[in-house]
Amino acid sequence: MIRVAVVGAAGYIGGELLRLLIGHPEVEVVGAVSARFPGKRVDGVHPNLRSATDLLFCSADDVDECDTVFLATPHRAAMTQIDRWIGLAKQVIDLTADFRLNDTKVYERYYGTEHTTPHLLRDFVPGIPELHRESLRTADLVSVPGCMAMAGVLALYPLVARGLVEPMAQFDARTGSSGSGATAGEANLHAERSGAMRVFAPTGHRHEAEMSRHLGIPAAMTATGVEAVRGVQTICHATLRPGVNTSAVRGAYRDQYQDEPFVRLVAYRRGTFRYPEPKILLGSNFCDVGYAVDEENGRLVSMAALDNLMKGGAGNAVQCLNLRMGWPEKLGLSFPGLHPL
Amino acid sequence: MIRVAVVGAAGYIGGELLRLLIGHPEVEVVGAVSARFPGKRVDGVHPNLRSATDLLFCSADDVDECDTVFLATPHRAAMTQIDRWIGLAKQVIDLTADFRLNDTKVYERYYGTEHTTPHLLRDFVPGIPELHRESLRTADLVSVPGCMAMAGVLALYPLVARGLVEPMAQFDARTGSSGSGATAGEANLHAERSGAMRVFAPTGHRHEAEMSRHLGIPAAMTATGVEAVRGVQTICHATLRPGVNTSAVRGAYRDQYQDEPFVRLVAYRRGTFRYPEPKILLGSNFCDVGYAVDEENGRLVSMAALDNLMKGGAGNAVQCLNLRMGWPEKLGLSFPGLHPL
Amino acid sequence: MIRVAVVGAAGYIGGELLRLLIGHPEVEVVGAVSARFPGKRVDGVHPNLRSATDLLFCSADDVDECDTVFLATPHRAAMTQIDRWIGLAKQVIDLTADFRLNDTKVYERYYGTEHTTPHLLRDFVPGIPELHRESLRTADLVSVPGCMAMAGVLALYPLVARGLVEPMAQFDARTGSSGSGATAGEANLHAERSGAMRVFAPTGHRHEAEMSRHLGIPAAMTATGVEAVRGVQTICHATLRPGVNTSAVRGAYRDQYQDEPFVRLVAYRRGTFRYPEPKILLGSNFCDVGYAVDEENGRLVSMAALDNLMKGGAGNAVQCLNLRMGWPEKLGLSFPGLHPL
Amino acid sequence: MIRVAVVGAAGYIGGELLRLLIGHPEVEVVGAVSARFPGKRVDGVHPNLRSATDLLFCSADDVDECDTVFLATPHRAAMTQIDRWIGLAKQVIDLTADFRLNDTKVYERYYGTEHTTPHLLRDFVPGIPELHRESLRTADLVSVPGCMAMAGVLALYPLVARGLVEPMAQFDARTGSSGSGATAGEANLHAERSGAMRVFAPTGHRHEAEMSRHLGIPAAMTATGVEAVRGVQTICHATLRPGVNTSAVRGAYRDQYQDEPFVRLVAYRRGTFRYPEPKILLGSNFCDVGYAVDEENGRLVSMAALDNLMKGGAGNAVQCLNLRMGWPEKLGLSFPGLHPL
Repeated sequence: MIRVAVVGAAGYIGGELLRLLIGHPEVEVVGAVSARFPGKRVDGVHPNLRSATDLLFCSADDVDECDTVFLATPHRAAMTQIDRWIGLAKQVIDLTADFRLNDTKVYERYYGTEHTTPHLLRDFVPGIPELHRESLRTADLVSVPGCMAMAGVLALYPLVARGLVEPMAQFDARTGSSGSGATAGEANLHAERSGAMRVFAPTGHRHEAEMSRHLGIPAAMTATGVEAVRGVQTICHATLRPGVNTSAVRGAYRDQYQDEPFVRLVAYRRGTFRYPEPKILLGSNFCDVGYAVDEENGRLVSMAALDNLMKGGAGNAVQCLNLRMGWPEKLGLSFPGLHPL
Repeated sequence: MIRVAVVGAAGYIGGELLRLLIGHPEVEVVGAVSARFPGKRVDGVHPNLRSATDLLFCSADDVDECDTVFLATPHRAAMTQIDRWIGLAKQVIDLTADFRLNDTKVYERYYGTEHTTPHLLRDFVPGIPELHRESLRTADLVSVPGCMAMAGVLALYPLVARGLVEPMAQFDARTGSSGSGATAGEANLHAERSGAMRVFAPTGHRHEAEMSRHLGIPAAMTATGVEAVRGVQTICHATLRPGVNTSAVRGAYRDQYQDEPFVRLVAYRRGTFRYPEPKILLGSNFCDVGYAVDEENGRLVSMAALDNLMKGGAGNAVQCLNLRMGWPEKLGLSFPGLHPL
Repeated sequence: MIRVAVVGAAGYIGGELLRLLIGHPEVEVVGAVSARFPGKRVDGVHPNLRSATDLLFCSADDVDECDTVFLATPHRAAMTQIDRWIGLAKQVIDLTADFRLNDTKVYERYYGTEHTTPHLLRDFVPGIPELHRESLRTADLVSVPGCMAMAGVLALYPLVARGLVEPMAQFDARTGSSGSGATAGEANLHAERSGAMRVFAPTGHRHEAEMSRHLGIPAAMTATGVEAVRGVQTICHATLRPGVNTSAVRGAYRDQYQDEPFVRLVAYRRGTFRYPEPKILLGSNFCDVGYAVDEENGRLVSMAALDNLMKGGAGNAVQCLNLRMGWPEKLGLSFPGLHPL
Repeated sequence: MIRVAVVGAAGYIGGELLRLLIGHPEVEVVGAVSARFPGKRVDGVHPNLRSATDLLFCSADDVDECDTVFLATPHRAAMTQIDRWIGLAKQVIDLTADFRLNDTKVYERYYGTEHTTPHLLRDFVPGIPELHRESLRTADLVSVPGCMAMAGVLALYPLVARGLVEPMAQFDARTGSSGSGATAGEANLHAERSGAMRVFAPTGHRHEAEMSRHLGIPAAMTATGVEAVRGVQTICHATLRPGVNTSAVRGAYRDQYQDEPFVRLVAYRRGTFRYPEPKILLGSNFCDVGYAVDEENGRLVSMAALDNLMKGGAGNAVQCLNLRMGWPEKLGLSFPGLHPL
């Protein structure tokens, strides 16, 4: 049993971390930090944990030395307090945006604010097991990517890595409302957000920078909020290099992902769920990836779907923890998702 | 053309009043009062009115003498400023809860606050054309009932009025999220409210008191928020007096409502929409009313559905205006609702 | 490891049984019977099971002797083939309606059809661990109740059992669309069913008869389809016996349920989820139960929420299996539900 | 008053045509043809028309000579019966796909079937008032475009027409479930379709061909079904020609659409509804168009939203009728849409 703490435990990612870590057979949760609710019951904020835990939220000051700290705070709260957490825990897994980019200039362009600990940027290993599994086995500092970026990277990486597409891609990301967090605002009021198809970032979304980094090509991304609480789907439009056909594309995806515990290839000719769709993934750690090829015009459309709080956040972080500890990668992450839902 | 003002024009009821009044052939909107947005464009808050109006919100002080003032403010703001509006307009149509009850004690029990102008309580005519049509033709003070109460009253009134049911009824009301207004709060955050079946008032909801008043019998009401933005449905459970059969019930509803412009009887044996359902009423001023009789056990289940912002608020208020002005009752209220939606 | 088969495995309850049984550490699924899809992959119909199983659907004839058979067929298919399954398996757990009532006359009144094996009606133990735990430990024939009935029974049983309420209750049940099954029909078309508040049974719903049976009092039930895929909530309105106060009610619920693994009492004064609500229960086997007392008028409103495919179906059936096998009652049923969702 | 008939009147587009035409001050509906429901009441299928009409469905044979026939049948039923309708009515407005393309080869590639009346393809004027207003004033044969194509064409046309973008564009279309029609199928079952993000056409959707035709450039389109009943949003990704800046783009849209009665430019820096979104357009005939420019990378993202049954179908057809008859273009189409919804 290792001892872990979750900082930002009253948020949606924090709640999902608690659900997973409380149910994890090798983990003891020794701290659930919330600046807003210290002393209050965790299940008062996360009602699905009623009867699963009697844990109370605590203050950051209450956290003792432990094995792993998960940071699920608002952006900038991770970088400004990072020294404290590094001093306290053997491993820090950061789920904020603060250490997702490894170039200060790119960070400052996309976030419009100065980075306070630029010297640490390159010390964080990206929390993408599919791309950085070996590094993650020994990583003491991990930065889990953004949910829409995670989907976009997994959707295109196999083709980029094999040089099968031209070096430029267009991403169209759709997301549910939980990605905006648990803080009430007018745009997220149920009557306003319900049934939305809201293009909240036609250009320049921050996850665009992450995809460019991990894919090594320029990425352009449009982000739309659609009617859902959980769930992200990222569609990628790319141009195939001359001579690349469906068979080559299929082979690339298969080679890349056939042994991945949490990536499934979904590209069927029949049935209702022919391509990746988030609704059957909610609560699970899967990222489903699919593709369609327009050979005549040399176009590729690839698609990835995931639960933004799971493979796009908390679940992915626990997968990184499992890797670091040498445990089976699926430990504590076996829930398969529901159908219908 | 008469000149009207809407106070509380940035809220959901206020926006619906503006939509109806701007489209009304006999009305000119001369004031849209908002304490939060004076000087801002109305269509910035109500985006469906883009290209329909260039109106700006104003302050209460900016409103000149006019023919009718509609009050759609938060509760208590109507009663504390009522003298001002009575002094300024020939007619005041109040859509808040402040003048819905005619008994100060009942008001104070249900609202937990003192009434500041109890002497006016009996001067307001209830804005229920189906029960008070003649009074409304000359009423200078009108109080529009609460949405769930309006549905409940129309669901049961024909039987109570004819002595066909025992004098006690149980009401089960379901409502969409727009009934909670346009102010953001945690319970109304999309991720929390979406897919809800939230019993927010198992007993003692304020609309219960209105139903008791208008029906003249004790009413017990349970209120649940369900997944919808607009729409209210109130189910009524009552006991039939001995000897009352289906035919008597049918006759009562038919007699009561056959000439009503905005009440439709909906009780079919076949089809998908056999009983009243709000989704086909959104944007319309109809209240659909239906019933089922369990003759063997002497039980009645009656049902009413409406759009809480229309027949449960703004539309009903405009119907009252039409009555007062001697215009056709359906003037400006002809939208029939959409199917599918 | 015991060997089990699921009959009706392509339906929604069948799919949920497969999900649970495939993940159950003591169970091997040896047959997934589907009349429509024999020879087809199970994960073609239940896409959430991709990568979890390579199982194919089979015909009824393909099922060999096994330990337990779960029947999740359409109604009447269980009773007409019951001899076959009793001959083949040590235990039969029936999730259809065929053996839920123990009185042939009541069955025929509510189902409008003759019962083909009335002699077996009394041999089936009701699959309600909270009421029949000891019998279920040895039961070879189990009949799992209907989802709305299960919620209604758990909502009121503690008070009925202690004589705290008058012997008559009114139930108001709300349900998502998955309760209608996986067969397409016009009323269940997305464009028609979406956003519905559809009173599909104002009186005389079949689950009413089950509640009367298990509670031992006359029950009147109204059933409404609301916007949700999964989830049932049943509200109960009853009259308290003279002298019964809130404290007595609280005590009754606490005594009844404090040791129940899958019933949680939910009745809070604060917070967003103060009373039982299905959305945080989806995928879990919990039934949340709450209550509110109107002491002045001697009224009780009690509420229960569950996932109709879990505690209202497949999960409850697995709980019964665990009891029969002497395994921990929560084995394979530990998923706590998601928030937000 | 002119006399009109609607063929395919029991479908969703047919129902919307009936709603509009029954409410149109210059039109009398003399026939509502349904092959499935001849002799049945129209409001049995379209419950929002209860109390608005006593019309019965009739057979095609029952339609007499009239002024205008609207065809809202399944595809292929229009072309195979077109002679009949041309012989019967002065004007035929076709809402099927049969006459949307003017090139037989393109038609056959996208529809996989032979065109039975290719000689008529060029006689139909595209029902796009914004591009073909003058022709529509005298057009006896009109073909209303597909809903996603209509949005895509209006989103990009101003820039293509002025040569501001490179001649290739990528379209990402999202649609509600009503676009699939009123016929039940498994993919459209509520439990399956609810909460979907379903890429049903990653490449090669038929509306792609319409956009290529009207824009005169190659178009690539991806179509996704999202959670909504009504509503279409088409996002367009294009590359700006060198030197084209935001100001030029803004000017192009303004010049093109400033006098259009049903196109609104929506591109705001603040507020919840900054870009085109269908939910505030339901029931209205508006198409909202917006855009964002990434000057640094020379990228354009333009967006259009509409109600697929209105500006994407029935409403657009009535606008074409108004043009042909010389009536005000907005006659019978004044409903502004609802907020919130």
